[in-house]
Amino acid sequence: MAKNTSNPIRKIVDGMKLTPNPNKEMIALSIGDPTVFGNLLPAEVVNAAVVESVKDCKHNGYAPSVGYEKARQAVADHYSLPSAPLTSQDVIFASGCSSALDLAISVLANEGQNILVPRPGFSLYQTLANSLGISVRHYDLLPDHGWQIDLGHMESLLDDHTAAIVVNNPSNPCGSVFSQEHIKDILKIADKNKVPIIADEIYAHFVFPGHEYFSMASQTEDVPIISAGGLTKRYLVPGWRMGWLTIHDRHDAFKNEIRPGLLALTTRILGPNTLIQGALETILTKTPQEFFDSTIAVVKANADIAFEALSKIPGLKPVMPSGAMYMMVGIDMEKFPEFHDDKEFASAMVTEQSVFCLPAQCFKYPDYFRVVLTVPQEKLQVACERIEEFCRDHYTVTNGANGME
Amino acid sequence: MAKNTSNPIRKIVDGMKLTPNPNKEMIALSIGDPTVFGNLLPAEVVNAAVVESVKDCKHNGYAPSVGYEKARQAVADHYSLPSAPLTSQDVIFASGCSSALDLAISVLANEGQNILVPRPGFSLYQTLANSLGISVRHYDLLPDHGWQIDLGHMESLLDDHTAAIVVNNPSNPCGSVFSQEHIKDILKIADKNKVPIIADEIYAHFVFPGHEYFSMASQTEDVPIISAGGLTKRYLVPGWRMGWLTIHDRHDAFKNEIRPGLLALTTRILGPNTLIQGALETILTKTPQEFFDSTIAVVKANADIAFEALSKIPGLKPVMPSGAMYMMVGIDMEKFPEFHDDKEFASAMVTEQSVFCLPAQCFKYPDYFRVVLTVPQEKLQVACERIEEFCRDHYTVTNGANGME
Ligand SMILES: Cc1ncc(COP(=O)(O)O)c(C=O)c1O
Ligand SMILES: Cc1ncc(COP(=O)(O)O)c(C=O)c1O
Repeated sequence: MAKNTSNPIRKIVDGMKLTPNPNKEMIALSIGDPTVFGNLLPAEVVNAAVVESVKDCKHNGYAPSVGYEKARQAVADHYSLPSAPLTSQDVIFASGCSSALDLAISVLANEGQNILVPRPGFSLYQTLANSLGISVRHYDLLPDHGWQIDLGHMESLLDDHTAAIVVNNPSNPCGSVFSQEHIKDILKIADKNKVPIIADEIYAHFVFPGHEYFSMASQTEDVPIISAGGLTKRYLVPGWRMGWLTIHDRHDAFKNEIRPGLLALTTRILGPNTLIQGALETILTKTPQEFFDSTIAVVKANADIAFEALSKIPGLKPVMPSGAMYMMVGIDMEKFPEFHDDKEFASAMVTEQSVFCLPAQCFKYPDYFRVVLTVPQEKLQVACERIEEFCRDHYTVTNGANGME
Repeated sequence: MAKNTSNPIRKIVDGMKLTPNPNKEMIALSIGDPTVFGNLLPAEVVNAAVVESVKDCKHNGYAPSVGYEKARQAVADHYSLPSAPLTSQDVIFASGCSSALDLAISVLANEGQNILVPRPGFSLYQTLANSLGISVRHYDLLPDHGWQIDLGHMESLLDDHTAAIVVNNPSNPCGSVFSQEHIKDILKIADKNKVPIIADEIYAHFVFPGHEYFSMASQTEDVPIISAGGLTKRYLVPGWRMGWLTIHDRHDAFKNEIRPGLLALTTRILGPNTLIQGALETILTKTPQEFFDSTIAVVKANADIAFEALSKIPGLKPVMPSGAMYMMVGIDMEKFPEFHDDKEFASAMVTEQSVFCLPAQCFKYPDYFRVVLTVPQEKLQVACERIEEFCRDHYTVTNGANGME
């Protein structure tokens, strides 16, 4: 299994020559961890709840491998909708959303089968699937249509061995948020082809003002859906490893195999830290709306700054996000003939400007880089200026009657 | 994978008719969780370290998937011995010892291979191995020799497809602690046959006064060893899911495949909770010796009480433990002909006496039951009285010239 386990981001990044310019302080816009700069802290009530959970000495023992009943009930209450009802029985805890995805993929797909995953997309789906002998097929997202799914392409990839479609909304790395209509269209394809959906909704509700988040499950009565979520992003605590699956299955398609299978799989490593589980009800019910609003405000302000600055740079084409914490930026590679690909481009940006963005190769997508939007504003501004300088230094008009475009 | 994942304890227990006697308060001596009765609490300094870790807001982000360097260094410092040196590079964190064992088995064995595991033994080894298509072969432990390994039997099970030998010392369910000499004998076989060892040392140092704990790694320079440990038992915090592997490999047998393989595997779910990682150095360096001593004193006193009481009961034969938190008790099944096996015996004890001990079937061993020794003393005393009554009620002299034995 270890031999089949590889993390493409690590592979690509380890293969890059990353020696920052010693005269410029390094600015890493590469890490999808909102806590690294210390500007975004968890809500006070969240920390207080965990401290209470430590002090009451009632959450030190083994929880059931699927999680404390009370905490699962809290998740059910929090995410239940009239159109997608949940009970505690539909909630399964895991060690972060990563582990939740691992459970979902393991239970739905067998060795030799395939799952459909987005391109560009989060690389963990492939890491997990391949380590289990499950192959992935990448369906395209369309940058010029707000990174919606190329539905025709997606449907063309389905075959008898397709065990599930992974849909990630809001998206890492795109920062896109699907419309209700687009979600319904995706579901139509799943329904027609009788394929369940793994909805990676770790960025649920993490959308900019004026946009609305719809869960996959809220838009269907028929397609069985396993949604993966957790505290990681929205509550700004990735290290806490508090993730979960919610199971939406109104016609009991998952009753005989999938649900018991998930329970069995949880007994392998016994779920996430109980101190956090013990605090979860308070976390979910008491975190003030202003906390979320202020995080979103930071990210949205950064998105505006980066979009404006990068739009002006000849050779770059940022795509404005509507949620999550990322922006994808297209590189017109023809204008930068010195660089063979996005990886070389990103490496050189480190060497010269000490700004590091992940080349979108890391997400199986060429000729883009990803900007993380949770950094302090001043840093982002400096980073954008340096990116501009970098592009100016390397922009080359290679051919064409006149060079003035 | 889910189909191949099963937890034998759950299967056996779920198949038991467990209806306590309504007139007697239930006493569960079945759960290997030292926290359930509330009599054993973590050290104050441990809780304080975690509270500090929450409050300083420096441990909310992603740690490296193998764990924070500083915390791994703390484990290396704590467990390093002149005869078995460790650096932080040899330490890999996991979500509990279960997840650590999962990593170790996954990295050492491939589908189709086998690993050797103890009988009686902790059932997770088989659960993990079988879910990965790895088979297990059970080597016998000898109750009349303090549950030492039947070395001849163990060696006879080795073949070309054996990827590792799992050795659990101190033992769940036996409470046995191997002598230095016995460990050396085990290692000789491993060395001769060039098989690495997975040492499940989650009960490391959890031994009664007068006994000494030797790690497997401290007794060899040649056999490569991956040891699994964690805070779970000795620090009385199973729910915290803080586990680790330490790699002992003086001749670099693990350098090219196993170490990189372990790193790759950790990227699947990204390690344990960072708040605990952040507190780990303090936990390992500041927990006072009296804390451990007093836990051991509780368990040892209970072992003495249970051993004395159960030794006197015709038809039962307890085996005095020297560590961990368990005692195995043999049942002379011929004297209890009403019951077909240890499972029926244990079920009836619940129905009549509201005392629940796990039948040793759960550990692949017939005609024994396991007593957990972390309960409050009064409860254990009552439980022993009830076990006595139960045995008196069912003890039957079936044959033989005279019934007075
Ligand atoms: C789309 C997506 N899914 C899942 C995860 C993993 O979340 P967790 O840290 O809770 O395992 C991430 C983290 O970056 C992500 O971007
Ligand atoms: C022998 C043995 N190994 C491993 C474990 C699992 O430990 P953890 O709770 O840290 O996963 C246990 C728990 O009972 C055990 O008895």
